[in-house]
Amino acid sequence: MAEQIAGRSQELIDEPNFAFVATLRKDGTPLVNPIWIDRDGDTILVNSSRGRAWPANLERDGRVTLTVPNRENQYEYVAIRGHLAGVTEEGADAHIDSLAKKYLGQDTYPFRQPGEERILIRIEPDEVKLFGS
Amino acid sequence: MAEQIAGRSQELIDEPNFAFVATLRKDGTPLVNPIWIDRDGDTILVNSSRGRAWPANLERDGRVTLTVPNRENQYEYVAIRGHLAGVTEEGADAHIDSLAKKYLGQDTYPFRQPGEERILIRIEPDEVKLFGS
Repeated sequence: MAEQIAGRSQELIDEPNFAFVATLRKDGTPLVNPIWIDRDGDTILVNSSRGRAWPANLERDGRVTLTVPNRENQYEYVAIRGHLAGVTEEGADAHIDSLAKKYLGQDTYPFRQPGEERILIRIEPDEVKLFGS
Repeated sequence: MAEQIAGRSQELIDEPNFAFVATLRKDGTPLVNPIWIDRDGDTILVNSSRGRAWPANLERDGRVTLTVPNRENQYEYVAIRGHLAGVTEEGADAHIDSLAKKYLGQDTYPFRQPGEERILIRIEPDEVKLFGS
């Protein structure tokens, strides 16, 4: 069963705060990328496109840590340790549009590249810890 | 030779922005912690205390990634991939005071715990990349 995302942890994810996603390179060293983040209940939803390094890392080794700091207070953050639960192209375009709405206030994601294949990535949390609240 | 930290990358580190330090747990999964950061030329200086998880990770496996986002613009950040170059107690107390000055505007670090042994950690960058500038 997935760990629950509740209370202030939920708020930090629902507000337009960036997540710092840490994945593992082939050689085992950590890669960290700031990304947009969303959730469906207790499942984390993120979005990328085929060929990017961090989702490729995640498909090779599904272990992942997401850190979501409050953009208005660097001392408050939620740390989520989890694992990859699924990658799909289905719904990925609609999902990046919903993230554009959340983070940019725009109905349509404005940075689409020609030929780009968006992917929707589901992550199940194994541990959710809140700090500095 | 260490990779150079120059221009806007230098500014992002010299301003009171947090660094997200990604280290490797014993089982190889990434741990991410927001920390204060400083530098001596091209060497990254960070500070912790004996017994904390992330410096213990770093002493076991010296491979590390630091991401330093602009606290006023989540889209701009510098990503530093590097390795542990040294851990010492020497000068660690004076160093945490200088970080308190940088981040809190206080001459003395106000969060000292009784019996705490501060450590000064040196990290040599192998790759420095600036994004969103």
